[in-house]
Amino acid sequence: MGLTQARIAVDAMGGDYAPAEIVAGAIRAREELDVEILLVGDPDKIRASVADPDSLSRIEVVPAEGTIEMHEEPLSALRKKRNASINVAMDMVKKGRADAVVSAGHSGAAMAAALLRIGRIKGIDRPAIGAVFPTVVAGKPVLILDVGANVDCRPKFLEQFALMGSVYSEYAFGAHNPRVGLLNIGEEPSKGNDVAVQVHQALSDSTAINFVGNAEGRDVLSGNFDVIVCDGFVGNVLLKFAEAVGEAAMNILREELPRGILGKLGVLILKGNLKRIKQRLDHAEHGGALLLGVNGVAVISHGSSNAPSIFNAIRLSKEAVDNGVIGHIQGQYQKVAASVTNGD
Amino acid sequence: MGLTQARIAVDAMGGDYAPAEIVAGAIRAREELDVEILLVGDPDKIRASVADPDSLSRIEVVPAEGTIEMHEEPLSALRKKRNASINVAMDMVKKGRADAVVSAGHSGAAMAAALLRIGRIKGIDRPAIGAVFPTVVAGKPVLILDVGANVDCRPKFLEQFALMGSVYSEYAFGAHNPRVGLLNIGEEPSKGNDVAVQVHQALSDSTAINFVGNAEGRDVLSGNFDVIVCDGFVGNVLLKFAEAVGEAAMNILREELPRGILGKLGVLILKGNLKRIKQRLDHAEHGGALLLGVNGVAVISHGSSNAPSIFNAIRLSKEAVDNGVIGHIQGQYQKVAASVTNGD
Repeated sequence: MGLTQARIAVDAMGGDYAPAEIVAGAIRAREELDVEILLVGDPDKIRASVADPDSLSRIEVVPAEGTIEMHEEPLSALRKKRNASINVAMDMVKKGRADAVVSAGHSGAAMAAALLRIGRIKGIDRPAIGAVFPTVVAGKPVLILDVGANVDCRPKFLEQFALMGSVYSEYAFGAHNPRVGLLNIGEEPSKGNDVAVQVHQALSDSTAINFVGNAEGRDVLSGNFDVIVCDGFVGNVLLKFAEAVGEAAMNILREELPRGILGKLGVLILKGNLKRIKQRLDHAEHGGALLLGVNGVAVISHGSSNAPSIFNAIRLSKEAVDNGVIGHIQGQYQKVAASVTNGD
Repeated sequence: MGLTQARIAVDAMGGDYAPAEIVAGAIRAREELDVEILLVGDPDKIRASVADPDSLSRIEVVPAEGTIEMHEEPLSALRKKRNASINVAMDMVKKGRADAVVSAGHSGAAMAAALLRIGRIKGIDRPAIGAVFPTVVAGKPVLILDVGANVDCRPKFLEQFALMGSVYSEYAFGAHNPRVGLLNIGEEPSKGNDVAVQVHQALSDSTAINFVGNAEGRDVLSGNFDVIVCDGFVGNVLLKFAEAVGEAAMNILREELPRGILGKLGVLILKGNLKRIKQRLDHAEHGGALLLGVNGVAVISHGSSNAPSIFNAIRLSKEAVDNGVIGHIQGQYQKVAASVTNGD
């Protein structure tokens, strides 16, 4: 924890359930976490979304006009709507008034706004979106990146993802000498497409990264890796599949467990244990995705985020701020970037 | 069901638990399914793997010498070991003595042997491996292809996968006017990499395929698609992740459900329902993967296949044979290939 409270700018207008669920999550975070909250959006709509006006008393409302809609092309929309909530939220970080941004709005717009307003970390070609997956080892998450920012990746992008992910995993999750894997279709160095083969070689040669080899799909949840890098196409497919599969497993449980009289009795008896299972399978428990590679903490939440998801996203951004992750990436990157073989 | 029994050549020497588990699965298939079995491998080892020699009385043992080991490079190994079990099994189809091959051995070698011995269907550039995934809708599987044969795909390969998958889904699963999707990172036609954008356009223009649009990772298990096409890199990652996640979900159930005295009681009461859940989550229940695009039915089973997996793989191959899937692909392909825009 830092000496000062982490200051989180929350995009109140982005997301399917904005502003009500966003505001509710932010209020809970202000109450339960050691954070300062800046709610960015239409002040009238923000105030109208709460039953008790006093609940906003310890939160600063920062006025903004409009939001980027899901169907809009990010760059032109951001230029047209200069005072859109995501632009204003990113400006809070730019001006040093906030340490982090949390948004459940248009993810492409959030990324573009971060790039335009906060800018890339020196030495990073392309920021990546990192998603935190739970593993079969309780309390041991794995950071997967990129999960959607870059559909086509040159080898050096993936090397940069590996280094950023490694730093993040060490400082935010406390992983010691984080084990980094390359998502691939087999264990052998020769497996995969040309990019995968090149990246495997470059990461093997790197002294800055503890590269432990290729990670197959079956290894993602094994707990054997702290960081797994991949291009944004396969990462995005994997993330969305993983989100859905947790729900699918819960649906199968709901359908099959209560069958018959014994089933209904059993479910009643197991109520408490089933709740814990739901928590372990539920993606919302694990917060949002991180935009890594810009000069600030940015958490991109799911469009369907409800108040608990926003609360978890704020906690995720607070951990990144308190542990000085961005500064460590900036510093470590400069120090070690030269030792990473340029595989491009 | 055909007028004659489907004749399945089973590679007795391929797989982690060969020959014992392979032979056991084949014997059960011979007893319970309406199939003829040719067990291909070392006759002494095959006979030594069964407790009762009579259990092999209704099965033909076809002698072969050696097997392709997992570490071997497929093409050179297949040339060097001309009488390896997978070569001999494929020859059974070539010679018209079998209708299908089932192998749990080196999957690259099985594919190469199929190409060399049976050959490609006319009009198909690259065979694909199709995997059958269960969906949240019971009894409604989805066929994903390719899951590992082709890491880099040109647009026309994916169009061919779509057509082969569509025919397979219709004749083997009885899907009416099968709904075909393109695995992608968003719904819009402009989403994804260059290949995805081109394939989206080509499939939209095709009159032979009921293309319903892009399928995101979250849609894979939704039951909204009968066939989903993708390149072999992302497909392989997805397949292996899906296999592992089913196991992971079962492990969470095993860990959390029996907690406490009530937990243990509840689990006892729910024994029957839990077994059904295991069946729905267990990948082995869904057989192997299909090699589509060669002039015969070839089922590639998981290396770790046990007897039940082999039994299911034989059932899968029998369904393909009985429904004349290969003939339909050959026929339909010729008829409609011209109407598929060549997106390459």
